[in-house]
Amino acid sequence: MMDIAGYMVEVGEQARAAAAVVARSTTAMRNQALLATAEAIDAARGELAMANTKDLDAGRENGLEPAMLDRLELTPARIDTMIEGLRQVAALPDPIGEITDMTYRPSGIQVGKMRVPLGVIGIIYESRPNVTVEAASLCLKSGNATILRGGSEAIHSNQAVAACIARGLAAAGLPEAAVQVVKTTDRAAVGELITMPRYVDVIVPRGGKGLIERISRDARVPVIKHLDGICHVYIDSHADPEKALAIAVNAKTHRYGTCNTMETLLVDQEIAEDILPLLAEAFVAKGVELRGCEATRAILPDVIAATEEDWGEEYLAPILAVRVVDGLDGAITHINRYSSQHTDSIVTENYTRARRFITEVDSSSVMVNASTRFADGFEYGLGAEIGISTDKIHARGPVGLEGLTSQKYVVFGDGHIRN
Amino acid sequence: MMDIAGYMVEVGEQARAAAAVVARSTTAMRNQALLATAEAIDAARGELAMANTKDLDAGRENGLEPAMLDRLELTPARIDTMIEGLRQVAALPDPIGEITDMTYRPSGIQVGKMRVPLGVIGIIYESRPNVTVEAASLCLKSGNATILRGGSEAIHSNQAVAACIARGLAAAGLPEAAVQVVKTTDRAAVGELITMPRYVDVIVPRGGKGLIERISRDARVPVIKHLDGICHVYIDSHADPEKALAIAVNAKTHRYGTCNTMETLLVDQEIAEDILPLLAEAFVAKGVELRGCEATRAILPDVIAATEEDWGEEYLAPILAVRVVDGLDGAITHINRYSSQHTDSIVTENYTRARRFITEVDSSSVMVNASTRFADGFEYGLGAEIGISTDKIHARGPVGLEGLTSQKYVVFGDGHIRN
Repeated sequence: MMDIAGYMVEVGEQARAAAAVVARSTTAMRNQALLATAEAIDAARGELAMANTKDLDAGRENGLEPAMLDRLELTPARIDTMIEGLRQVAALPDPIGEITDMTYRPSGIQVGKMRVPLGVIGIIYESRPNVTVEAASLCLKSGNATILRGGSEAIHSNQAVAACIARGLAAAGLPEAAVQVVKTTDRAAVGELITMPRYVDVIVPRGGKGLIERISRDARVPVIKHLDGICHVYIDSHADPEKALAIAVNAKTHRYGTCNTMETLLVDQEIAEDILPLLAEAFVAKGVELRGCEATRAILPDVIAATEEDWGEEYLAPILAVRVVDGLDGAITHINRYSSQHTDSIVTENYTRARRFITEVDSSSVMVNASTRFADGFEYGLGAEIGISTDKIHARGPVGLEGLTSQKYVVFGDGHIRN
Repeated sequence: MMDIAGYMVEVGEQARAAAAVVARSTTAMRNQALLATAEAIDAARGELAMANTKDLDAGRENGLEPAMLDRLELTPARIDTMIEGLRQVAALPDPIGEITDMTYRPSGIQVGKMRVPLGVIGIIYESRPNVTVEAASLCLKSGNATILRGGSEAIHSNQAVAACIARGLAAAGLPEAAVQVVKTTDRAAVGELITMPRYVDVIVPRGGKGLIERISRDARVPVIKHLDGICHVYIDSHADPEKALAIAVNAKTHRYGTCNTMETLLVDQEIAEDILPLLAEAFVAKGVELRGCEATRAILPDVIAATEEDWGEEYLAPILAVRVVDGLDGAITHINRYSSQHTDSIVTENYTRARRFITEVDSSSVMVNASTRFADGFEYGLGAEIGISTDKIHARGPVGLEGLTSQKYVVFGDGHIRN
C-alpha cells in the first residue's frame, strides 16, 4: 500500500521549491512554457485520445452517468479549445511584478506595492480533464506552482495532459514540478492536500456543491470557492418594460446550467398586473416553467405555486421562481435573505433606486439594467477566469489572474532610519 | 451554567443584523459615532478608572506578572491616546463605496469595482483594554460590525469601554450591536466565535504567538494573522558603510519589542572584515548582545557562538544574530529559509542587486537602504493599522482600513443582454 501522506509531502516539497523558481522566472519563460504546452498537446492528440478512451471505457464499465461520461470526453474540439486557451493565456499581460501606488512619505521613504504570486495553488476538480490545462495555465501565468487533483475517473486523461505540460515546462527551462498532477486516485490525497499549509497557499475547488462544501469544511488552507448561484432580477415599477422583458428572458434562457443564470424573478407590485402576463408569455414560449407566489398566481392563475424552498433553489434548469414584492425595499429584503450573493440585477429608470440597489445589495456582482449572464471573467475583461468566488475574503466575483496573486510592500530609501 | 453556544449565536445574529445597517450608513454617521465615543470616554474617566481598578486588583490577587499588569492598566495617558485615536480614525477618508476601474466593455456594459465592508469582524485579543477601542473604531469606520473578545483579566475595563462605545453608536443613531464585547470570560466563547462562518466573516487575533497559532489551527472562519517578525538586514559589499551602520543600528535598537525590529544581521563576506568591527562597536555601545556564526567569530572573537536556533529566533530583546554570507545569493537563501516573511532590507548602492533583492525575497515588506522599523501602517500612510499580516491571502503586510473591506463588481447597462 502506498504511503499517501509521505507521497503528498514529497509533492508539496517539490511544489514549494518549484514555486520559488517560477516566481522569479521571466514573463517570456512563462509564456514560452504555455505556448510549448499548446504545441505538445497538438502533437499528442493520439496519446490523449488513447488515455481518454481508457477512462471512458472504465467509466462505462463502472456505470458512470451519460452526463458524467460527456464531461469526461476529450473530443478533438475540446482539445482545440485547450490549445486556444493556452495561447490566449500566453497573450495576456503578466500581472507579476507590477508596482503600483508608489508614493513618498513624510519620512522620505518611497512606498509602493508589488504584485507577487501566491506560491503553491492546489486545484481540486471533478471529471473534466480540460480543467487540468485551464487551471495550470492560469496558475503558471501568475507565477505560481500548482498541484492538481482531478477526479479519479479522469486519471489517465489527466496524466496524459500532465505529460504535455511537463514537456512545455521543460522546453522553457522551468521545473516540471511547477505543475504536478497527483498520481494516486486515493481519496486520502485530497485530505492531505487541503491540510498542508506549509506547502499549499490556497485551494481552489471546482465542481459540485457537495465537493466544495466538504473541502471548505475540512481545509486547513485558505479556500477560494464558489457555492451557489441563486441570482435575481428585480423589475422595478419605474422599469422600461422593453428592457425588463429582454433582460429577464436573457438572464433566464440564454443558458440554463450556468451559475449566473437568474433563478428568481422579483416584480414590483405596482406593475405586476401589466408586466407579468407579458413575461409569462415570453417564458412559456421558451418552455420555462414558472413557480409563483400567491400574488403572482392571482394574476397568472396557471402558474404553479412556489414553496419556501423555491426561493433558495438553484434550478440550473428551465424553471423560474417568480415573486411579487413591495417595491425596492421588498426586493432588497428578499435578495439579502435568499440570494447566494452571486449576482443580482435591478431593472429601473429611477436614479435613486438604482443607487440604493447598487449600495444595499450585498452580492459579488450588482447590476443595473443588465442581464445577470454578464457576471463572467471574460465579459468583465479579466481575460481569463479560474472561477467565480462567492466569498468576500481575498477575491470576490469572477477571479482572474489577479486573484491568484498577492501584493507585497516595497520600500526605497537612501539610508533612511526611523526617528 | 450559561449556555455559551446559545449566547454566541445570539451575539452573532445581532452582529449580522447590525452589519447590514452599518454597511449602508453614511460616512457622516460613522464619523459621528467615533467622535461621540471619544466624548463618552472623556466623560467616563471615573467609571473607566473604577472598572480598571477592579481588574488590576483581581490581577494582583491572581498573581499576574508585572508586565501583564502594566498592559492591563488604563492610565490617564492611555485614555488620552484612545480619545486621540478615535478622532484620527474619524478624520480618515471613508474607504466604503469607492468605485474604481470603471471601464466600458465591448458588449457595451460598464464594469467597475465598489469597495464594501467585509461584514462582521471578530477580534480576539489579550490584556490591553485600549485594543477594544482601537479595533472597534477601525472596523466601524470601514463599515463593519465587530465582536470583540478580550482577555478575561480585562473584563471589567473592556465592558466599561464597551459602554462608552454603545453611547457613541446611539448618539449617531447606529445599532449598539454594531460593536459587541463578549460578556463571558468562558474560554468556550472563543471556540464558538471562530467557528461561526454564518455570523463572522473574518477573525483578527491580536496577541502572543501561542494565541494566534491556536486560533489559526481551530478556526472555521478566515483569519488575518501575524505570526513572527524575524526581520533581516543584509549589508551588501556594495553598501555605503555609513548608511549600513545607521540602518543596522536603527533596525535593531530603535525599539526591541516590536515585530519589525531586526533579529538577524547578514553581512557580505567581501566586506565583513571591514564593517563587522564597526557594527560590533556600535551595538556593544547600545548594550546589544551579539551571537555570531563562525566567520563572524573569526573577525570578532568576543562574540558568542550562534546556534541553528538563533537564525529562527524572534528575540524581542537586545540580542542580535549575525551571519556572514556569500554575497546576495547567500543572503537571499538565508532569508527565504529563516525569515518569517515579515520585513527584510538590503543595504547596497548596486542597482542590479537591489532589483534582485526586491524581486526574490518573498516577504510582506522588502526594502532597499531603509530600516525595517518603517514597516508600519502609519509610516506607510495607511492612516491606521489593525495589525501586520504575515499571510499572503487577502491582506499582506500592514493592514489598514482597506484590509477590512472587500470589493464587489458593479455593472451599469442600458438594457444590455448577452448574446
